[in-house]
Amino acid sequence: MDEYPWIKKPTLLLDPARARHNIHQMVTKAQGQSVRLRPHFKTHQSAQVGEFFREEGVTAITVSSVDMAVYFARHGWNDILIAFPVNVREIGEINALAQSVHLGLLVESTETASFLGRNLKVPVDVWIKVDVGHHRTGLAWDDAAAAISVCQAVEGQATLRLRGLLTHGGQSYAAGSVDTVQKVYAECVGRLKSLRQELQRNGIAGLELSPGDTPGCVASDDLGGVDEIRPGNFVFFDAMQLKAGICRPEEIAVALACPVVALHPERGEVVIYGGAIHFSKDSFMEDGKPCYGYVALPERSGWGQPLKDARVVRLSQEHGIAHVSSGDLQHLKIGDLLCILPAHSCLTVTAMGEYYTPDGTRISTMVKE
Amino acid sequence: MDEYPWIKKPTLLLDPARARHNIHQMVTKAQGQSVRLRPHFKTHQSAQVGEFFREEGVTAITVSSVDMAVYFARHGWNDILIAFPVNVREIGEINALAQSVHLGLLVESTETASFLGRNLKVPVDVWIKVDVGHHRTGLAWDDAAAAISVCQAVEGQATLRLRGLLTHGGQSYAAGSVDTVQKVYAECVGRLKSLRQELQRNGIAGLELSPGDTPGCVASDDLGGVDEIRPGNFVFFDAMQLKAGICRPEEIAVALACPVVALHPERGEVVIYGGAIHFSKDSFMEDGKPCYGYVALPERSGWGQPLKDARVVRLSQEHGIAHVSSGDLQHLKIGDLLCILPAHSCLTVTAMGEYYTPDGTRISTMVKE
Repeated sequence: MDEYPWIKKPTLLLDPARARHNIHQMVTKAQGQSVRLRPHFKTHQSAQVGEFFREEGVTAITVSSVDMAVYFARHGWNDILIAFPVNVREIGEINALAQSVHLGLLVESTETASFLGRNLKVPVDVWIKVDVGHHRTGLAWDDAAAAISVCQAVEGQATLRLRGLLTHGGQSYAAGSVDTVQKVYAECVGRLKSLRQELQRNGIAGLELSPGDTPGCVASDDLGGVDEIRPGNFVFFDAMQLKAGICRPEEIAVALACPVVALHPERGEVVIYGGAIHFSKDSFMEDGKPCYGYVALPERSGWGQPLKDARVVRLSQEHGIAHVSSGDLQHLKIGDLLCILPAHSCLTVTAMGEYYTPDGTRISTMVKE
Repeated sequence: MDEYPWIKKPTLLLDPARARHNIHQMVTKAQGQSVRLRPHFKTHQSAQVGEFFREEGVTAITVSSVDMAVYFARHGWNDILIAFPVNVREIGEINALAQSVHLGLLVESTETASFLGRNLKVPVDVWIKVDVGHHRTGLAWDDAAAAISVCQAVEGQATLRLRGLLTHGGQSYAAGSVDTVQKVYAECVGRLKSLRQELQRNGIAGLELSPGDTPGCVASDDLGGVDEIRPGNFVFFDAMQLKAGICRPEEIAVALACPVVALHPERGEVVIYGGAIHFSKDSFMEDGKPCYGYVALPERSGWGQPLKDARVVRLSQEHGIAHVSSGDLQHLKIGDLLCILPAHSCLTVTAMGEYYTPDGTRISTMVKE
């Protein structure tokens, strides 16, 4: 009766057909609007999943670390943007990379621009990191003076090709509704354009625009005439995106299969082998409480729809506690598997480091090659 | 001027002298009260750190997974308790382990007891998992009838040696003050004893008692006459334990060295290369906001005292955002290192998978052998 007799412990299942469907949707949208899709590969971190993108004609990618750039360069990608402020301590690795691929870097200070000017041995593209409201990092979109001085510092260096303005409108993750996500995306693009205009007035011309968060790129019919987008999460989606109305349940392409180790029907709880070291520990609020994932049952070729009113409510190092309705709980027994749709798939992928397809084929990532 | 020129990216520093001091303190306390110390090795997950314990005479250990038991068995430990409800899907691995070491398992249901009876090939110790108020898992301490039936199911199996009652009083982590931690620990032990008495009245005699959370074992002068304790976190401690008054800053034995990649003095923020994939994502509340770690500066042989009013306030996949006072911020520049005392060291260790001592010596764990 067990669909997955080969699963002994927490195992990240990947449904390749769903991932391919998600990729195809985004490629089609970007092509339809003549926007370059430079997907963020930090979500899957896998050369094999990267091939799904290549099959759809994708040639430019985004990564979040020098290590990740090195990994994908080794797997034949040669247009790579590291969408993270330059870590100057890795200049040796950056120089090696720049010699073998077309490399893009993120700069947001004159200090980093001049450091790169002094230390880079081969030219790279530079994108100016702009803060359009997420307030993680970047130059404020309405501080043209700061942007002008960084752009000028970049233009003053022979090895730096000023390419464009880049932002991550991460505030879309907290938007709460599809409507608001669309407004946030439009506002992000509007702010990038406003800064570009200011820069142009000051003699800094020809800048490309690169926004790119999954909620904004999925929810917005109009990508706003930007040059490229860099969504990442859409390849797998997750419970957070489902909750936000950004995806449908059948578009979620990864699930963590976790053995049931104890049942507590008196409080409607199931204890699973699957904790913070497997999921990482991201959550979103559901009915005023943190939710670490939705719960589905294994099926022959994957997993079913999320069970109604079921969710993972607590995680410790190796334990997960799932609330499950009494109707569903009475069919469960110790040793069964639950397939958990994780709150945040990117972090779960990194924590697990490898996937298995429902037929038991292993797919590696840079974490566990 | 850089103390650690060899550190290029997020690197987990371990101060062996501090870890040895912490181990020595706990060994001394346990010996003074004739209590067996069976430290939980899930915190460090490292054969080399395990040797620090062996030097202090420790011979019995706790782990949280079958994989971890296999790893430490391979490194010469032969009295191992897996303090996690038996995952019946790993019965093959459990049988192999039980053939080579003195193995202890956790049981909390008659189903699991009879499964083990049917499938175990060699005898193991069984501890009954008791819930003394943490409500993660285990049999309720005041439901003697349930405990009696599980104990009888265990006693009915030739391969199961009923050893004792075990609990994790994890509610101590939320106690908020040393006083309350002491009360919680005493209450946990009292509840274990009350259940043992009930069982004895029903003919189930000779049960040992095993509690063991770091806050309770550190804060309580009197361990309550139990047979063994199983704290784990005390080997390294962390920001959460510092905040709770359980350790002093100079007892925290691990820090994540993170490069500074951007400075935002206008909002008192430093962006570091070090995010949820490095720290995991545990936090505690400080002034009504989540705190992911405290901030210290590197020093020649480790790191200094935590900076006043400095803390990591947000984590995304690779970025960390630290609030730092304007006085400290003005001395920082891009490329500097900050040493972050993580909120929860156990999860950070698993996320990083390896340590370096301040002199650059690598210490491996089971995650990255």
